[in-house]
Amino acid sequence: MSTLTEQTHHSLIAGEPAPGTGGTTQAVDPARNTPTGPTFTLLGDGQVAAAPRAAAEAFPTYRKLTPEARAAFLETAAERIDRAGEEIIATAMRETGLPEPRLRGEVGRTVNQLRLFAGVCRAGDHHGVRIEPALPDRKPLPRPDLRQRKLPLGPVAVFGASNFPLAFSVAGGDTASALAAGCPVVFKAHNAHPATSLLVGQAMSAAVAEHDLHPGVFSLVFGPGNAVGQELVADPRIKAVGFTGSRSGGTALMATAATRREPIPVYAEMSSVNPVFVLPSAAAGDREALAEGFVTSLNGSAGQLCTAPGLLFVPEGADGDDLAARIAEKLSAADGTTMLTPGICSSRIEGEKKLAALDGVTEVGRGGAGPKENAPAPAVYSTGLETFTATPELSDEIFGAVCLIVRYGSADQLPSAANGLEGQLTVTLQTGTGADRDADAGSDTASENRVVQELLDALELRAGRVLFNGWPTGVDVGDAMVHGGPYPATSDGRSTSVGAAAIERFLRPVVYQNAPGPLQPAPVREDNPWNLGRRVEGTYVAADGRGQSPAEKGEHMAEGDSA
Amino acid sequence: MSTLTEQTHHSLIAGEPAPGTGGTTQAVDPARNTPTGPTFTLLGDGQVAAAPRAAAEAFPTYRKLTPEARAAFLETAAERIDRAGEEIIATAMRETGLPEPRLRGEVGRTVNQLRLFAGVCRAGDHHGVRIEPALPDRKPLPRPDLRQRKLPLGPVAVFGASNFPLAFSVAGGDTASALAAGCPVVFKAHNAHPATSLLVGQAMSAAVAEHDLHPGVFSLVFGPGNAVGQELVADPRIKAVGFTGSRSGGTALMATAATRREPIPVYAEMSSVNPVFVLPSAAAGDREALAEGFVTSLNGSAGQLCTAPGLLFVPEGADGDDLAARIAEKLSAADGTTMLTPGICSSRIEGEKKLAALDGVTEVGRGGAGPKENAPAPAVYSTGLETFTATPELSDEIFGAVCLIVRYGSADQLPSAANGLEGQLTVTLQTGTGADRDADAGSDTASENRVVQELLDALELRAGRVLFNGWPTGVDVGDAMVHGGPYPATSDGRSTSVGAAAIERFLRPVVYQNAPGPLQPAPVREDNPWNLGRRVEGTYVAADGRGQSPAEKGEHMAEGDSA
Repeated sequence: MSTLTEQTHHSLIAGEPAPGTGGTTQAVDPARNTPTGPTFTLLGDGQVAAAPRAAAEAFPTYRKLTPEARAAFLETAAERIDRAGEEIIATAMRETGLPEPRLRGEVGRTVNQLRLFAGVCRAGDHHGVRIEPALPDRKPLPRPDLRQRKLPLGPVAVFGASNFPLAFSVAGGDTASALAAGCPVVFKAHNAHPATSLLVGQAMSAAVAEHDLHPGVFSLVFGPGNAVGQELVADPRIKAVGFTGSRSGGTALMATAATRREPIPVYAEMSSVNPVFVLPSAAAGDREALAEGFVTSLNGSAGQLCTAPGLLFVPEGADGDDLAARIAEKLSAADGTTMLTPGICSSRIEGEKKLAALDGVTEVGRGGAGPKENAPAPAVYSTGLETFTATPELSDEIFGAVCLIVRYGSADQLPSAANGLEGQLTVTLQTGTGADRDADAGSDTASENRVVQELLDALELRAGRVLFNGWPTGVDVGDAMVHGGPYPATSDGRSTSVGAAAIERFLRPVVYQNAPGPLQPAPVREDNPWNLGRRVEGTYVAADGRGQSPAEKGEHMAEGDSA
Repeated sequence: MSTLTEQTHHSLIAGEPAPGTGGTTQAVDPARNTPTGPTFTLLGDGQVAAAPRAAAEAFPTYRKLTPEARAAFLETAAERIDRAGEEIIATAMRETGLPEPRLRGEVGRTVNQLRLFAGVCRAGDHHGVRIEPALPDRKPLPRPDLRQRKLPLGPVAVFGASNFPLAFSVAGGDTASALAAGCPVVFKAHNAHPATSLLVGQAMSAAVAEHDLHPGVFSLVFGPGNAVGQELVADPRIKAVGFTGSRSGGTALMATAATRREPIPVYAEMSSVNPVFVLPSAAAGDREALAEGFVTSLNGSAGQLCTAPGLLFVPEGADGDDLAARIAEKLSAADGTTMLTPGICSSRIEGEKKLAALDGVTEVGRGGAGPKENAPAPAVYSTGLETFTATPELSDEIFGAVCLIVRYGSADQLPSAANGLEGQLTVTLQTGTGADRDADAGSDTASENRVVQELLDALELRAGRVLFNGWPTGVDVGDAMVHGGPYPATSDGRSTSVGAAAIERFLRPVVYQNAPGPLQPAPVREDNPWNLGRRVEGTYVAADGRGQSPAEKGEHMAEGDSA
């Protein structure tokens, strides 16, 4: 366990401390509203360029590592973060106000994500190999030998989120997927948790060194305001951007990226109100469980999750009234917890004030303020569907434990309400007993089933994830997850920021035509030295012996080496 | 064979003629500089919106077609274009000046592309299914049932190229891949070949009608200047853009798409000079074949191919001098052919004049002007590597049969020259006898092999296709092709506009969490009614019985139907 000394600390560019000339910062313990931890220098004008420069120098060798070498590096990073876990957790508790169990889980998730991507590297499907061997006798023209594979884009700039100081931060999903793809990473830390960031950054740089990689494979930079971030995205050596944060922050980076001499992709995860639709048959069912599940999902992590439910559609009438009453009751027993920063807390309080002041919005219930600083009471408001439809501000995200219940008269109104929604990370259908969708159901159920299908048709076009009979918080990290969705949930709905498929965002295809055997890169070579699954003549051919030893899988052969 | 009457013709919005209020246009026969064919009305302010409106109406049903239904529609479109082939060829010859064999080949390519995508629909790998079944006993948390698939983005606006009046036009690659993905298409015709466009558009609309699809699945619009195109890209119902044309045209659409309320992807194929590197050992080899191959590639289709070689790196010294002399000789026997439009011809002439006037640029040789109008002589110029490196304008594309030879002193200079290049559709290495890359070669060859590897390392990062010992013109349409590349070759190097993988640009992933069986869309359903290859627990599981009959493959079940 290595503790950060009280001395002044710096950005870590290519493994070396880089004292900044752009002033200093210190974290604030949001539970006490007092400064905490050491001082960090911030990079001044022009200083950040050293990081993409080092990344560009690292790229030619890093991109050519064998699958096994890249996987082993990611595993070492995971191992080093795991080993520093206790210190990281203690530091993050002071800097973020998040409780220990949450942070302990987040260390685990961060470590597991790195290991997931080590597995992705070894499996190698992301190389996207497509082979069409030469057909010299084809008429009217012979076909050349064509071998397609995917290449990493180049150095990637990643911006840390405030709300996941580990899993969406220095060694979080964007970093892990970019490194797995073969892209060096320049990570811009969130200033709310600099010591947490530096501890993880040190683990990353130590892993880089342990594997004798070029030190530019990873840099961690601290900067004032948005200037360093904008400078980074404008740097010609940066070829893609990963970001998790506010809509204003994300769109500012999108604008910079789009107006570069060479525009680059920006993957910004920005804002989502994660609507939940409680169908009449669900409201007629176990309302106690619904109220309990909802309040837990809303108030967890002080509502500071990208997938927290911010809109709840509930039927009018006795069932809906009872559900709202139970929600109010659960809420009255719930306390607020400290939010991540005083600034985030005041934005949330302002957001709630604006919401409460709108015509047609009434309070349903609220909890208590937490015992420490920056811990406002969770709160739920209500309005009617017509008011909701007529008032676009009611769809704005309030980052924190504030939800708006929208009461609807008939389930038939829901599909058109769904069609009016902006893009979301998640949408949820509470279908209750109707979930069985019995073919021989009574006519009420049949009619509701029709509505559910219409709703699903509308909602799947507006979200990255569609859930049934659950709550949107909690994102499983695996092969099938999508954490993304149409704008403004993200800047680019064509990818995911969580799960194995995230590697695809940092790749692009290239085809080799009639390349002499020795010049073919390993993924497309005839003898398939990396033992990849590949498409041949349009049909996927699985790798042989997925379970064979790394040595047999060509462990030590980088892609430029001869067989 | 249906001939267009001499009456005035109109845009075809959702299958119906839509007379425009924005003036009229008529094609010009570039071989004679005279108007040809009927008059076409152009859409006026606000008129084009009807096309995306119809496309948005068509989307909900079109996106849910079975693989077989969508494939059959594409095949009918192919069949109808094939049947109208003679009339299309005759019309296109008048409108474009392209010779009959070239246009006959292009009809074949267009028809084959549609059939290729019918096959892509049936195979179904583009659904990108990833399944992780529920693990209720997993610790610390159970895993929900997760089923990912890819959905079409929505209506797509496609812009036709001037230089491929069929294969990159109304029913070209972008249209075929978007329709295969499940996206209705609004096609903006190139005003240089309106009658050709309308004939193909009529075939498309007839195929839509024959399959009883919503007529909004396909529209063809004619508009004045750029206004209608900009209006189309700004339309909120359009969700992606395909474009092939100039850099200025592409970047204008990119700017519009980026500043929409909801930004959308733009796939613009824009400009490329397609550098060819002749290594010393190639120049020492069969120079006669090199000169012949080069001049044929340069002068084909009057140099109006996106992949025409615009830069040729040739060594200094006797071999290079001789190669240049042979190129000059071949060129002197080559005639210009009529270019697509008088405007394109004058841009090309201006471009050549600017090039010829630059310091350090000398003429190597030229052919003769063609016998008809707008047929300037093919021409080749030469400069030294230092001048080339110091003069950015020398890398600008001249659309037409004009090439710049760059003479280099040593092959060791080539990698840094390669690193200075912008993104390209193609790069070519002529490695000659060195292509064998003999391990026991002499030291000259070993040194050249090292240079070739360095060149390849630099070039694969700057192009969508890397060719060896061939010429870049001629793009094979199949499973493995990439026709794309980093900016400014395209606006988005993450995809291809030619070949089966093009379907991916019009899709995005969505995951269903704990969806009740009957609500699961067909691609992710447990019983796999469409018999797709799918990833299950991270491993690809091939479809069963790829060869089975369509009926067994669930031919008639749309994705919303119950099993």
